[in-house]
Amino acid sequence: MSYHDFEEACVDPLFPELGERVRLRVWTRAKEGFLVYEEGGELHRKALRPFPGGLEASLPLPSSPFRYVFFLREEAWAYLGSHGPEPALPRYDRFFHLLARPLPPAWALGAVFYQIFPDRFRLGQTPPPRTGAWLYGGKPILHKAWDEPPSPESGSREFYGGDLYGVLEGLPHLEALGVEAVYLTPIFQSPSVHRYDTQDYLRVDPHLGGMEAFLALKEGLRRAGIRLVLDGVFNHTGNLHPDFQEALDPESPKRGMFTFRPDGSYASFYGVKTLPKVDYASPLAQERLILGENAPVRYWMRHADGWRLDVAHQIGEGGTNRNNEALLRLIARTAKAENPEAFVFGELSFDTVPTLRAHTLDGSMHYAGFAHPVMEWLSGRNVQGEEVRLSAKEAWRVLFDHYAALPLNLRHSMYTLIGSHDIPRPLWRLKGEVRRLEVAFGLLLAFPGSPGIYYGDEIGLSQANPYSDWRGDPYCRGTFPWDRSRWNLALLDWVRRLVALKRSEPALRRGGLLPLSAPPGVLAFRRRYQGEEVWVYASPDPFRLDLPPGTDLLSGRPVQGRLEAEGLLLFKPEKGLY
Amino acid sequence: MSYHDFEEACVDPLFPELGERVRLRVWTRAKEGFLVYEEGGELHRKALRPFPGGLEASLPLPSSPFRYVFFLREEAWAYLGSHGPEPALPRYDRFFHLLARPLPPAWALGAVFYQIFPDRFRLGQTPPPRTGAWLYGGKPILHKAWDEPPSPESGSREFYGGDLYGVLEGLPHLEALGVEAVYLTPIFQSPSVHRYDTQDYLRVDPHLGGMEAFLALKEGLRRAGIRLVLDGVFNHTGNLHPDFQEALDPESPKRGMFTFRPDGSYASFYGVKTLPKVDYASPLAQERLILGENAPVRYWMRHADGWRLDVAHQIGEGGTNRNNEALLRLIARTAKAENPEAFVFGELSFDTVPTLRAHTLDGSMHYAGFAHPVMEWLSGRNVQGEEVRLSAKEAWRVLFDHYAALPLNLRHSMYTLIGSHDIPRPLWRLKGEVRRLEVAFGLLLAFPGSPGIYYGDEIGLSQANPYSDWRGDPYCRGTFPWDRSRWNLALLDWVRRLVALKRSEPALRRGGLLPLSAPPGVLAFRRRYQGEEVWVYASPDPFRLDLPPGTDLLSGRPVQGRLEAEGLLLFKPEKGLY
Repeated sequence: MSYHDFEEACVDPLFPELGERVRLRVWTRAKEGFLVYEEGGELHRKALRPFPGGLEASLPLPSSPFRYVFFLREEAWAYLGSHGPEPALPRYDRFFHLLARPLPPAWALGAVFYQIFPDRFRLGQTPPPRTGAWLYGGKPILHKAWDEPPSPESGSREFYGGDLYGVLEGLPHLEALGVEAVYLTPIFQSPSVHRYDTQDYLRVDPHLGGMEAFLALKEGLRRAGIRLVLDGVFNHTGNLHPDFQEALDPESPKRGMFTFRPDGSYASFYGVKTLPKVDYASPLAQERLILGENAPVRYWMRHADGWRLDVAHQIGEGGTNRNNEALLRLIARTAKAENPEAFVFGELSFDTVPTLRAHTLDGSMHYAGFAHPVMEWLSGRNVQGEEVRLSAKEAWRVLFDHYAALPLNLRHSMYTLIGSHDIPRPLWRLKGEVRRLEVAFGLLLAFPGSPGIYYGDEIGLSQANPYSDWRGDPYCRGTFPWDRSRWNLALLDWVRRLVALKRSEPALRRGGLLPLSAPPGVLAFRRRYQGEEVWVYASPDPFRLDLPPGTDLLSGRPVQGRLEAEGLLLFKPEKGLY
Repeated sequence: MSYHDFEEACVDPLFPELGERVRLRVWTRAKEGFLVYEEGGELHRKALRPFPGGLEASLPLPSSPFRYVFFLREEAWAYLGSHGPEPALPRYDRFFHLLARPLPPAWALGAVFYQIFPDRFRLGQTPPPRTGAWLYGGKPILHKAWDEPPSPESGSREFYGGDLYGVLEGLPHLEALGVEAVYLTPIFQSPSVHRYDTQDYLRVDPHLGGMEAFLALKEGLRRAGIRLVLDGVFNHTGNLHPDFQEALDPESPKRGMFTFRPDGSYASFYGVKTLPKVDYASPLAQERLILGENAPVRYWMRHADGWRLDVAHQIGEGGTNRNNEALLRLIARTAKAENPEAFVFGELSFDTVPTLRAHTLDGSMHYAGFAHPVMEWLSGRNVQGEEVRLSAKEAWRVLFDHYAALPLNLRHSMYTLIGSHDIPRPLWRLKGEVRRLEVAFGLLLAFPGSPGIYYGDEIGLSQANPYSDWRGDPYCRGTFPWDRSRWNLALLDWVRRLVALKRSEPALRRGGLLPLSAPPGVLAFRRRYQGEEVWVYASPDPFRLDLPPGTDLLSGRPVQGRLEAEGLLLFKPEKGLY
């Protein structure tokens, strides 16, 4: 078995400039081989040279993505591609893909995120909006008490009153958990509670405490050493945005920022008229939202460490996603021009691979390649509540297929998750079975990526709707209970320990991913960094293993030989497999 | 097991216009399901309706490629993608891809081609060039006798004297074989014998008999009902082309048709200075070669039925393959504007899938997904002569992986092959083992695609070089021996029967492709069309099977139960599997 993944021992430098010489190493028993790579539509061969442990080649990075495989001679000749050994040349889809800079900032690789929906995390100093203070969708907004459950009838106009001061006051909880970065859902002035219908991109919503609260939070995060990522809603504005209001006048120069049809209707997010879609074919739209000195993409990178781009896969021209890739590149580059350490990742709800291979973003929310298969395996239902059947082996195949298809340099900056504001709470999906949630958290923290913990999941927050009313939003947006008697402290401690291991074990944070044989029903894999390995075994049911000498990382105790385990085992062998 | 492939029973119409309503049917036991498709970057769901045999949906084709999977409920919910059942949503790579028109002309689907290298097929009426008549690469061209073997020292300047009258005289051989289309390597005036260095695109080389011979051949083909495809060399011209000669003058308006560097050097095919690369960023280059009234792409479509585009994957701008896909689309559309029945396929030496999914060509030579894996399996060596090991099962996986990844509408118009002017003769690679060559021909004619027979392979023509001098060109370009005593008549009869079956059995010509279980060492698959199936078993060694009632297509005899077979079995069961 030969090995090539995203660590300095294989790719050096990890983040090369286009044209910079990069050394590619494959760890292998083969004594002879070629790097086979694509350039200008042709495949080329470059002979590999031996180094202690395998074969290597170096060359100036000719393109981004740079596609290559290794052709190695052990007994016969065979290929090593992104998905493992191949007896014949694989399709380009299973070539390794390496990107040139700009790429994710180092801080984001394997960093532990915490996602907060600001109205629901913690009450701070700002008076909540009063019931009836304004109309939303023609109906009065509501002020709800912290302990009331969300209601689908009034979902987007229910205000609980959490604010950014509340987030600031909650930071000790995040610090105790070991969180390294916060991702806030939108904070800019908007008429709804989710604030995905932006009215003013440059104004922190006064109901969240305004700019004063934001700056206080920023300072608090700085002191805690926690990074901040904001939610950038650039596919559409809210209909109350002044530019859209002006654009309603057919004579307005801002008309072209949106896609109006001859009948006066306009393109919008999923046909929702309060969310008019921005037409980035308009240079003015690019100026106002991305490029201008105070365009939000630039402006906020003076205050924050990155963007999560809402419905990034829809952003485009003329009411479509046309030129999506070029526009994502423009947004990411502009953010990084303002803040070279900015981490810009997309929502990308579906298969992220084509977009991420196209030299666009630093990563994306990993629904397709992580959240969905993990929760489908553990719950037997998909995110819509339909019954599905994934065995542990099938779930592993899905996880590995997405991982392997990603550009190498983005494999550790995917925002992996098990819960978010858009899908049902994992504990609810698991019907309250904490053991399964522990397994899900185990995979979240042990799998490659930058894991995101959705506020409250770590203390066992669930949601109250019956399974006959299968939905996340608004139920998954319940308030965080600050009464610790309502917390599952054992679960919290479990997550805290996993976070600590993610931070302390280089193989878990920055290691490559390899298959690992395991008993039926056990989802298993290896992480590997500079020759050190961690073996991950996960199963909601007890299982038996026979292990070489090593350490059980969760208990810190040495283990060896035959043992029974359940839930999750993180095993660090004295010697890796190769 | 559910079924969806490229036949009217699944896709109707097979070749829809963009926006035209298309009905998609999946043959399945599931009673409930959705079509899950991508539009504008989002996945959408459309409920399927039952029809006798399965589920269907119809919708106006929204894009090209149109990407979709089926989500079906049998016991639990699961997906059907291009590569078969999937327990979780697959990556886009394994979605079905459907293209809008224009698409391959109906005549080309499953049509049997015969490839001819004109100088080497048959002597006609044109006096061969005399030795020393001109210099090529600074050395005199040679006239060689028909029975002399080609020599690498003088490969491109050896003329045997075959011409288009010879091809015309050879047509009875093609008719007897059942050939439906001829693909001629280049015939336009050029200084070399391969004629890939075009001097005049509008002049049939006088050494091939000129336009008079061409018109005679055209008429002969018309009478025989055989189509004609020409070799279009548009990535580069020859350095003797007048446009390039003019462009050598820095002041020439034609300078921009090529990519000159500040030092006066210029981009060329693989750095060969006699093959200057055309820069299609130049509108003039597009006019002169593609778009103009008498540009060759247009001109020859008044006389022929299609183009094989040489190194199609390299065509581009500025000395690179930049804008390759748009330019291939331009070439194909221009050819079809002149001749709506034109079949335009690419050389595409490597993985063809990304290019063909991008709404470009009608198909391509199928090296990566057919010729290479088949010959690697049967010979144990790759096209470079390196030892490789593909089991029958692995070879099947490679074949199926490429097939399944192709846009549905191109699955039957891939130019499948086992030999060409660019690779060693299959019989030579198989070390003269005719049994293995029979198996290779069996796969060639039974696998989906438009099979191309390289002149002479069907009579057992091999090549003379020792294996220590592993190469095809020039050895694979030997002359066709018209003395029938030198033919392998049994092989010829074998190929003729396979061609006849390809033409008479709709499942072999137009059927979908499905897996089929088989003993180890046997490469097996099913073809299916309108519920009728043909089961294909191929192995160079004898094998045993247990079959339901049906017909052995090669013998025409009924078979049933346990039987021993060897080489190739084409079995038509009374009932298909589903």
